[in-house]
Amino acid sequence: MPQIHAARRERLQAVLAAGDADAALITSLVNVRYLTGLASSNAALLVPAGGRPVLATDSRYALAAERDCPDLELLTCRAVESALAGVAARRGLRRLAFEAHEMTVERYDALASAAAGLQPRPLGRAVEELRMVKDATEIDLLARACAITGTAFDEVAPRIAAGMTERELAVLIERAMVDAGAEKPAFDTIVASGPNGAIPHHTPAGRTFAPGDMITIDCGARYGGYHADMTRTVVLGPAAGWQRDLYALAAAAQRAGIGAARPGAAVAEVDAAARDVITEAGHGEHFSHGLGHGVGLEIHEAPMLGRGRPGRLADRVPITVEPGIYLPGRGGVRIEDTLVVRSGGAAARDLLTTTTTVTPRELLVL
Amino acid sequence: MPQIHAARRERLQAVLAAGDADAALITSLVNVRYLTGLASSNAALLVPAGGRPVLATDSRYALAAERDCPDLELLTCRAVESALAGVAARRGLRRLAFEAHEMTVERYDALASAAAGLQPRPLGRAVEELRMVKDATEIDLLARACAITGTAFDEVAPRIAAGMTERELAVLIERAMVDAGAEKPAFDTIVASGPNGAIPHHTPAGRTFAPGDMITIDCGARYGGYHADMTRTVVLGPAAGWQRDLYALAAAAQRAGIGAARPGAAVAEVDAAARDVITEAGHGEHFSHGLGHGVGLEIHEAPMLGRGRPGRLADRVPITVEPGIYLPGRGGVRIEDTLVVRSGGAAARDLLTTTTTVTPRELLVL
Repeated sequence: MPQIHAARRERLQAVLAAGDADAALITSLVNVRYLTGLASSNAALLVPAGGRPVLATDSRYALAAERDCPDLELLTCRAVESALAGVAARRGLRRLAFEAHEMTVERYDALASAAAGLQPRPLGRAVEELRMVKDATEIDLLARACAITGTAFDEVAPRIAAGMTERELAVLIERAMVDAGAEKPAFDTIVASGPNGAIPHHTPAGRTFAPGDMITIDCGARYGGYHADMTRTVVLGPAAGWQRDLYALAAAAQRAGIGAARPGAAVAEVDAAARDVITEAGHGEHFSHGLGHGVGLEIHEAPMLGRGRPGRLADRVPITVEPGIYLPGRGGVRIEDTLVVRSGGAAARDLLTTTTTVTPRELLVL
Repeated sequence: MPQIHAARRERLQAVLAAGDADAALITSLVNVRYLTGLASSNAALLVPAGGRPVLATDSRYALAAERDCPDLELLTCRAVESALAGVAARRGLRRLAFEAHEMTVERYDALASAAAGLQPRPLGRAVEELRMVKDATEIDLLARACAITGTAFDEVAPRIAAGMTERELAVLIERAMVDAGAEKPAFDTIVASGPNGAIPHHTPAGRTFAPGDMITIDCGARYGGYHADMTRTVVLGPAAGWQRDLYALAAAAQRAGIGAARPGAAVAEVDAAARDVITEAGHGEHFSHGLGHGVGLEIHEAPMLGRGRPGRLADRVPITVEPGIYLPGRGGVRIEDTLVVRSGGAAARDLLTTTTTVTPRELLVL
């Protein structure tokens, strides 16, 4: 494992060497974990453009850092950022790149006054960009998180019935994921039934399922720090014609989006491939969010798939593809899978979230 | 409910009127919730020193904002901060106080360039300071969160037995809290058994309980957004002498700390009251953290009780009192309760976390 993290740090060092910074101060805890393997609530990493990085964390995590990061110089202290700024200043690493999207104004001011002579400059989302393309270890963890999600969903789906509340179903699914091996849910499970289905991020509450309800379930497991994301929509029979039509439209849009998700494809074009299907059916205004997003150590990470979003997909980039159609006052459909974009031939992508109970292709009537 | 939030905003406006700002831009989502009642993942609030505040949130939360915040001017948009900075600029509210402890450098730069002519200045933790003293609604929610925690603990405690893993017990307690009415756990439950008890924030894993283990369980329910926090330490019999002694010492320290927690008391003195008991017994170096912290909309909030911490307690300030003694390689004890500091007579405090199974006074041998 240390070799994996060393390789990741070398990629960052190559970025630094090509730029105008002597070192990077990594303060995003997710990025510190990515570059070192250490999951800590108080840690920072100083990565010089050349030479040995320094990891700072407090005494609660010192043992874990010694065990898991033998190739790093370790510093045990509470004020990790100012300590590392001091190290940088003493070593003459004046041009210090920092994570301006993570660091608060207050902490920045403290940092600047802790180490005189530093010339801070924004690093940008350099580590987040490295994180887009996953290595084999990461894809294995993500695949496991997705498999747990599918197993849990298959176990719970047959128990969905009239009289159950949204909240009860959300709790059932989260428990099934933990029983199947999840560390915890990757995010708060969404269960949106009947008219609530028109709210993309509805918080499951006391509404009781009734015959004729469409029910959208958005859930995912976290495993080894990696996040799965999957949405299924089912209907408590009998299904109305408009429900079948809406589901078929979302499924067709998802197929188009997945089909377009290939290495080299512009993310905006992948979004458009799915969106056009929905727009042509007259529901463009009812698909109010982007088509999907990257997943990994965070549930939402680069790349974001949407209109006007920059960038292209590449080999080994995991994304979600999740078109939704939301009819205010009536209900909604969303179908979402997590997949890995792959280069080469017919297998241009690996679908990671699969369920036997509810396939994206056909509306399940319970 | 809107009246409660209006009263909170008026307290902030009084702070602003006494200072040098024309308005405050509140971007901490917890502070926005405190001042408006709206729980949103994308919202900000512009509070002029005088006049009607403006709440900005995106379309996902627009309906909730209209329903719950009828007395506020509402703005529906995605870029909530720059939109409100624009409102401030147009109204001539140039001296804009912002939350430097929450806002990132990147967002600050965007804000400054979005509205020319603004004179930003740090607001400090003004809202966090207002949040220290709780109103009756908040204390009711906190009491409910604590009652749920105690109920869940009492239900699970008799099931603790040799052969169970730390992780299994953590899952049992979290499920019992949700079954008893919690929205969710207030934080990831800590179960630290045997030697792991020496790690204050141990992550429960596969270690199996064995006879002679001390087991520290740190758990809490969230209810209505408010966080309970409680720790109990039990022993799988037979209890060794050193375990009984360590427990008695932690209990005595907790009694001393609770006894000192009165309106007007300096938080550093409350910490010292408990710490002195442990230090006099020769274990000062084994009590490595502060005595406690405020609780409310966040699990850790002002005031922080510890050596060198500034400030004093006041009427209606909820805090935890949680002395711990950690012996590396052997194990540890922590006893924690959530209580509300109260003015007046004998009842200088209300204990909110109570359990019938395990009282802080006596070591429970299972």
